[in-house]
Amino acid sequence: MLKKRKLGRGVAVVGAGMSRFGMFKDMDSKDLFVEAFREMLLSVDKGVDPNEIEALYLGNFSNDFFMHQAHWAPIISDLIGVTPKPATRTEGACASSALSFREGVFAIASGFYDMVLVGGVEEMSKCSTAEVAEGLALATVPYEGKVGFTFPGVFGVIGTSYFAKYGASREHLMNVTIKSHNNAPLNPKAQIPYSVRDLMNAKIERIKQKGRPLPQWKDEKDFLRDPSANPVVAWPMNLYDCCPISDGASCMLLVAEDIAKNFTDKPLYVAGIGQGSGRGFHAAKSLTSFEATINAAEEAYGMSGLKPEDIQFAEVHDCFSIAEIIHTEDLGFFKPGEGYKAVEEGLTRLDGPKPINTSGGLKSKGHPVGATGTSQLFEVWKQLRNEAGKRQVPNKNLRFGAAHNLGGTGGTCTFTILERR
Amino acid sequence: MLKKRKLGRGVAVVGAGMSRFGMFKDMDSKDLFVEAFREMLLSVDKGVDPNEIEALYLGNFSNDFFMHQAHWAPIISDLIGVTPKPATRTEGACASSALSFREGVFAIASGFYDMVLVGGVEEMSKCSTAEVAEGLALATVPYEGKVGFTFPGVFGVIGTSYFAKYGASREHLMNVTIKSHNNAPLNPKAQIPYSVRDLMNAKIERIKQKGRPLPQWKDEKDFLRDPSANPVVAWPMNLYDCCPISDGASCMLLVAEDIAKNFTDKPLYVAGIGQGSGRGFHAAKSLTSFEATINAAEEAYGMSGLKPEDIQFAEVHDCFSIAEIIHTEDLGFFKPGEGYKAVEEGLTRLDGPKPINTSGGLKSKGHPVGATGTSQLFEVWKQLRNEAGKRQVPNKNLRFGAAHNLGGTGGTCTFTILERR
Repeated sequence: MLKKRKLGRGVAVVGAGMSRFGMFKDMDSKDLFVEAFREMLLSVDKGVDPNEIEALYLGNFSNDFFMHQAHWAPIISDLIGVTPKPATRTEGACASSALSFREGVFAIASGFYDMVLVGGVEEMSKCSTAEVAEGLALATVPYEGKVGFTFPGVFGVIGTSYFAKYGASREHLMNVTIKSHNNAPLNPKAQIPYSVRDLMNAKIERIKQKGRPLPQWKDEKDFLRDPSANPVVAWPMNLYDCCPISDGASCMLLVAEDIAKNFTDKPLYVAGIGQGSGRGFHAAKSLTSFEATINAAEEAYGMSGLKPEDIQFAEVHDCFSIAEIIHTEDLGFFKPGEGYKAVEEGLTRLDGPKPINTSGGLKSKGHPVGATGTSQLFEVWKQLRNEAGKRQVPNKNLRFGAAHNLGGTGGTCTFTILERR
Repeated sequence: MLKKRKLGRGVAVVGAGMSRFGMFKDMDSKDLFVEAFREMLLSVDKGVDPNEIEALYLGNFSNDFFMHQAHWAPIISDLIGVTPKPATRTEGACASSALSFREGVFAIASGFYDMVLVGGVEEMSKCSTAEVAEGLALATVPYEGKVGFTFPGVFGVIGTSYFAKYGASREHLMNVTIKSHNNAPLNPKAQIPYSVRDLMNAKIERIKQKGRPLPQWKDEKDFLRDPSANPVVAWPMNLYDCCPISDGASCMLLVAEDIAKNFTDKPLYVAGIGQGSGRGFHAAKSLTSFEATINAAEEAYGMSGLKPEDIQFAEVHDCFSIAEIIHTEDLGFFKPGEGYKAVEEGLTRLDGPKPINTSGGLKSKGHPVGATGTSQLFEVWKQLRNEAGKRQVPNKNLRFGAAHNLGGTGGTCTFTILERR
């Protein structure tokens, strides 16, 4: 079934940067993108003259809504000196910057450009939580958001469907949360750099200071089971199943494969790119699978000639805990209905055979939606180049890593495979 | 100075469609896109199976704001049967769908796809005029819109600057309005299919019916000079210098050049694509030139090997009358300061040596911002294939036509040259 797609010219990544992720009162989208851009420039081992950048692709979901400012690509291009060269914004909800990466790949593979900057930015924390929920609902299909079916509700329904079909429970979701939060303290840019145990102990400390009766939490799961610590948002999605509201930016420098070694001895190569679209749950064939993810995986595997077992680690879009489980099945890493068991067995831990979300994932690294796609690829860049520090995957023979980015309630999905040769 | 850019594989246009443009109470973005899509399918001379479409690129400026719904690409892809294949939204303000065309070209030229649908849509008329002004201001740079410097104001300043520098006056702007409105009645899809004389006579008729004193307008210019008929919006931009608020959609079917003849004996070929970005007037080198347009023109001429004099007719972004004059200079059709004289001399009329905006232009065809870029290329398609009916350019040897699309107050610009061989 896989159509073997090819690019006319190979594309390589020679630099990458990301800002810290968090809620920043004193930094706006421009500040955050500059932070990411500076790191990208410094990451190019043999140096690069930013004047050589020929075009910019910028992912942004809806600073239109969040910041009352659209048309961000030329604003950012002016800021970093790309003006008057082309600057294009891509939007695919939470997958917006994975789309910018892909368009950058096409622009170089077409032969038109040799060097393109791709990235994304989003600034959400200056809105109230209610406003963010309203803003994100713009990304759902019209039959969802407008009837009040916002993100936690959609993923709650997905969760209950998955539970009913495969016999999983909230206990299994907690494994995802605990695993991701174990990685986050190892990532200096994570928004919530704390393990669940850290968070539990901090909560106990606060209760102690207030002189209230101490909770009897035996372990992290006991903490997560307690609605006073982990309240229901939209059952079975509790607070710790949901990613936070974030600001941030990320970017990568792409060049034609044949000039990559001019910039670094350790370029990464674009082995596979895939994308898909989905139709919303009113018309979906399944509530426990994303057709957009499946199409994206088919395209990327088809181009690369790789199989799921060849992907040694991946960033997977965990906007909600249940999303990570389902996507790891849709991507073929685990069989349908077995994703939750894989987490339980520790297969997706940093030191497991298939590490997932070594960065901490959207859950604890943060999810400034338009910046997330290229920030996931930033993690793949760090891991494949053996520069991930304390969260470096132990496997010494890393060659293929991937990032999976979802937009909306399944409307847009990408899957991107990078290779170290 | 022109860098000779090349695409690794040629790209052809084999179908095109657009909805009527106007203010539609009973049609939404989905209805309008389907209208354009149906016409596109019927325009493919040898027929096409829509299942062969491999990806969609959709330009939309801010249905986020206008319709409180973002993430339109998967909504439209679902509607026309492209789901679960990739669907990507591009945004460059009023140039959003020219960007979708360009990304479609790159996706095919890269070798990854053979057939891609590109287009755009916008739904604005369900907002009040004040809301539209607020929405469009999202496309200005932060230093403009947020201080109340909205579109008519920006182009008003450009107009006064041009007048001061070159000695032009409002009388010259009127020539642009009269010329565009003379073409619109020949375009069955135009939002305002009336000449200025038609509009003047209709106004006289209404005054007569009310029994009020009849105005003494000798000709169209006398009508346009009268502030009771043509009130000031932001001097020197009067009502008839400004494009209307519109709803609409447009699309084109792109295929790899080597398979184009499977679909039609009269494909058009992408001879040149160009894009540029601009930095807003607080930092612009000139108030009477758009650096984004100049960069776009350099790219497109550089790729095509063509000169401005080779372009036999063009659609040029006339959001305001002064914009058309300046862009025709930036594109090299006329020397700086001579664009207004060219209009006065009739050079840009339908039967002149360099017809501009044969469709009626944004001014009278309408400007549903996200749909405008591919609607301009739709006009080039019609003209080059000798299918433009009553507004067909008389020159029997048409070979090169072009479309110029501007986004924001100069933030994004594209220039696209199509060829009939």
